[in-house]
Amino acid sequence: MTEQFVAELRRRATIYWEKHPFQQAMLAGELAPDAIRAFVSNRWYYQASLPRKDAAIIANCPVPAVRRRWLERIAYHDGAAEGEGGMADWLALCDAVGLDRADVLDPEKVLPGVRFAVDRYSAFAREASWVAGVASSLTELFAPDLMGRRIEAFRTHYPWIDPAGLAYFEKRCVQAPREAGHALEVVLEYARTAEQRAACADALTLKCEVLWAMLDALDHAYRGHR
Amino acid sequence: MTEQFVAELRRRATIYWEKHPFQQAMLAGELAPDAIRAFVSNRWYYQASLPRKDAAIIANCPVPAVRRRWLERIAYHDGAAEGEGGMADWLALCDAVGLDRADVLDPEKVLPGVRFAVDRYSAFAREASWVAGVASSLTELFAPDLMGRRIEAFRTHYPWIDPAGLAYFEKRCVQAPREAGHALEVVLEYARTAEQRAACADALTLKCEVLWAMLDALDHAYRGHR
Repeated sequence: MTEQFVAELRRRATIYWEKHPFQQAMLAGELAPDAIRAFVSNRWYYQASLPRKDAAIIANCPVPAVRRRWLERIAYHDGAAEGEGGMADWLALCDAVGLDRADVLDPEKVLPGVRFAVDRYSAFAREASWVAGVASSLTELFAPDLMGRRIEAFRTHYPWIDPAGLAYFEKRCVQAPREAGHALEVVLEYARTAEQRAACADALTLKCEVLWAMLDALDHAYRGHR
Repeated sequence: MTEQFVAELRRRATIYWEKHPFQQAMLAGELAPDAIRAFVSNRWYYQASLPRKDAAIIANCPVPAVRRRWLERIAYHDGAAEGEGGMADWLALCDAVGLDRADVLDPEKVLPGVRFAVDRYSAFAREASWVAGVASSLTELFAPDLMGRRIEAFRTHYPWIDPAGLAYFEKRCVQAPREAGHALEVVLEYARTAEQRAACADALTLKCEVLWAMLDALDHAYRGHR
């Protein structure tokens, strides 16, 4: 039963965004600098939503052991101090691609489709069962090499980007499999009924749709910029 | 303006539960063992709600620096590992007063009035502005000596309770003023308009009402047990 469930989760993740034309163009080195910059600045809106998304999952979770581990995600993104953590690393990437920090931080500059998608994900974390919230984070489990491929693509095809700005991706190569492994353990332990498991699979589909919709918005806005 | 606001917050906290007849009877050494046990076991429902309450505040908070500090509250209660932290200390108190652990953990055994009050507080943290959520934690700022008095009362009047069980209160004597000082800083920095400050004052009133209602339920259930 467990193998079947994991296979179903994997199947749900097959629409994962690495297959998206914009993502493929990025990995193939086909994006113009302003398309790369648009990806990095719009993705900031997603990155900045993560600590609150994870806190919403903790707020819904009655299991101290799960909360304790999940707390590490918030600490990972917010960092131990100002200028540290995943969000600071993403802002360093923003600097490295030549974005103006004030523009990045201005939510008015985010593409509407990106905002709608991220806001839907945040709302889901608040409103869904905490186990489904955990399951929605599993995308990284089924795309373990995406970060590595992205780093290689950035180094190879976009030499104008200072490699020091890639620290976010480099750290994710270590952190993402660890987080995803824990999330899968939690889902397998706490999603026991068919209904709970269906909700987890649907949560993963939703998350893929969110990531996909973000790239749709970018693709349509920057289609000619290759 | 700031002094006026702080004075108003202090005024709102004057109905704080140390004035409640049940609390006064506890401090005066007038409670029978089963009334003490009822306090400790019913209060567990409140203690167990705190990490999720604090996560809800973080989930609503867009300020990384505030989230970073507030995260410490969740870690404080849930502990760094199983058997550590504020909740584990409260369970040790449950043991020290002779409660059965299974009874304490059974939400069915919580007095309805206690459950309603705590659930209202949890809902408030989810639904209110995050600054009001922070303000609702300020009760401890205006009752700095309550923990000390409670420890003394327990040691003096209830010698049948193993003093090792009082670790929760002892740690709160150090932690509570620290937390309350930070919460006040946050409220003063982020509640700037009259409307925001009124919401913070009302949040503090609500919190006092929650604590008061918990003691009402205990007082009515154990009125004769003195």
